Amino acid sequence: MSAPVRVKWLAAPSSATWLAQAIAHSDLVLIDHAHCERKAAGVALQLMFRYPSDGQLGEVLSPLAREELEHFEQVLQLLQRRGIALRPLPAPGYGAALSAAVRKGEPERMLDSFLVAGLIEARSHERMALLAAHSPDAELRALYGELLASEARHFGLYWLLAEGRYGREATATRLEQLAAVERSALDGPRADPAQVRMHSVGVELGREA
Amino acid sequence: MSAPVRVKWLAAPSSATWLAQAIAHSDLVLIDHAHCERKAAGVALQLMFRYPSDGQLGEVLSPLAREELEHFEQVLQLLQRRGIALRPLPAPGYGAALSAAVRKGEPERMLDSFLVAGLIEARSHERMALLAAHSPDAELRALYGELLASEARHFGLYWLLAEGRYGREATATRLEQLAAVERSALDGPRADPAQVRMHSVGVELGREA
Repeated sequence: MSAPVRVKWLAAPSSATWLAQAIAHSDLVLIDHAHCERKAAGVALQLMFRYPSDGQLGEVLSPLAREELEHFEQVLQLLQRRGIALRPLPAPGYGAALSAAVRKGEPERMLDSFLVAGLIEARSHERMALLAAHSPDAELRALYGELLASEARHFGLYWLLAEGRYGREATATRLEQLAAVERSALDGPRADPAQVRMHSVGVELGREA
Repeated sequence: MSAPVRVKWLAAPSSATWLAQAIAHSDLVLIDHAHCERKAAGVALQLMFRYPSDGQLGEVLSPLAREELEHFEQVLQLLQRRGIALRPLPAPGYGAALSAAVRKGEPERMLDSFLVAGLIEARSHERMALLAAHSPDAELRALYGELLASEARHFGLYWLLAEGRYGREATATRLEQLAAVERSALDGPRADPAQVRMHSVGVELGREA
């Protein structure tokens, strides 16, 4: 079973093991997905708060945050229709590992923040594409299929924000470094398969993209 | 010149002095307004992050946050059309005074957070209604006229969230106390009239509502 999309910027594709775990615990992945959409909106808004006088940033990130919130609502509605309660889930450590790679001083901090946010969107896109193609649940296939296109577009928006400010070469170089961090962030100690997340760590990755 | 709307829950109406200052410095109020919409979205999202497993909260606050972001974008577009740069503005201390009144322990903290957010929306509604009726700038009258209805609805949503969890009487009692805090928050030391904000302090208030 291979990924139906090869996401160019990711250093390694997700494995069939992750997909099998996610299919086996689809309710859990759905709850985690709701939290991911909320957090993605939070990341965009946080950037707007950190750079409050950057109108171009607001122009791009405000609609992006709105779209993430719309997706949050869509997932929430599906959870409610299925009688699944939204509950907090311990984070898999993926986001924390990526945040730790963001450099503290400006202008590096802004570049890294864009690229880390973009890489998370790219990984979500890749994993949603796996679920959209292989979930045995038709409603979930439709949901993930509908949402994954935005995730890819969001990666593109973060890329454009970075490229517009730092140039193509500096952006591509740093993205490659952070993509390696993203790869190792997923490559942590083997986690409980019953605790699968959209961004589970400890599930072996496929061969180098 | 009197307020075209009397907002029931506010302990005191805004004065003609605030309105005159806001009309004299309409560009500044517009920039501040953009920041207010962003911050209002931030407040809603912050509550969703503080209570991540409360689905009903997410169901109400996620669309509210999206609407605030849409307004942020509308104001940003107007600023751009007018060639006014978004710049950071020192806060007038109003939000900080209200936040300080939020009790630290649960369940009081949640109740107070809803009501403080609601009161800020109510004051925005009242002041936008003044500008919608009295601004000499037709485009601004139209903008404020369009946005003010949402602010009133947002007050109602925060009220309903509070009432549903704490009951009508406890909610009304605490709202009255916090409305008094809101009134004194506006009643600070006289500020520079050229530094007017949507929630300026130090502008005398009208008689008790």
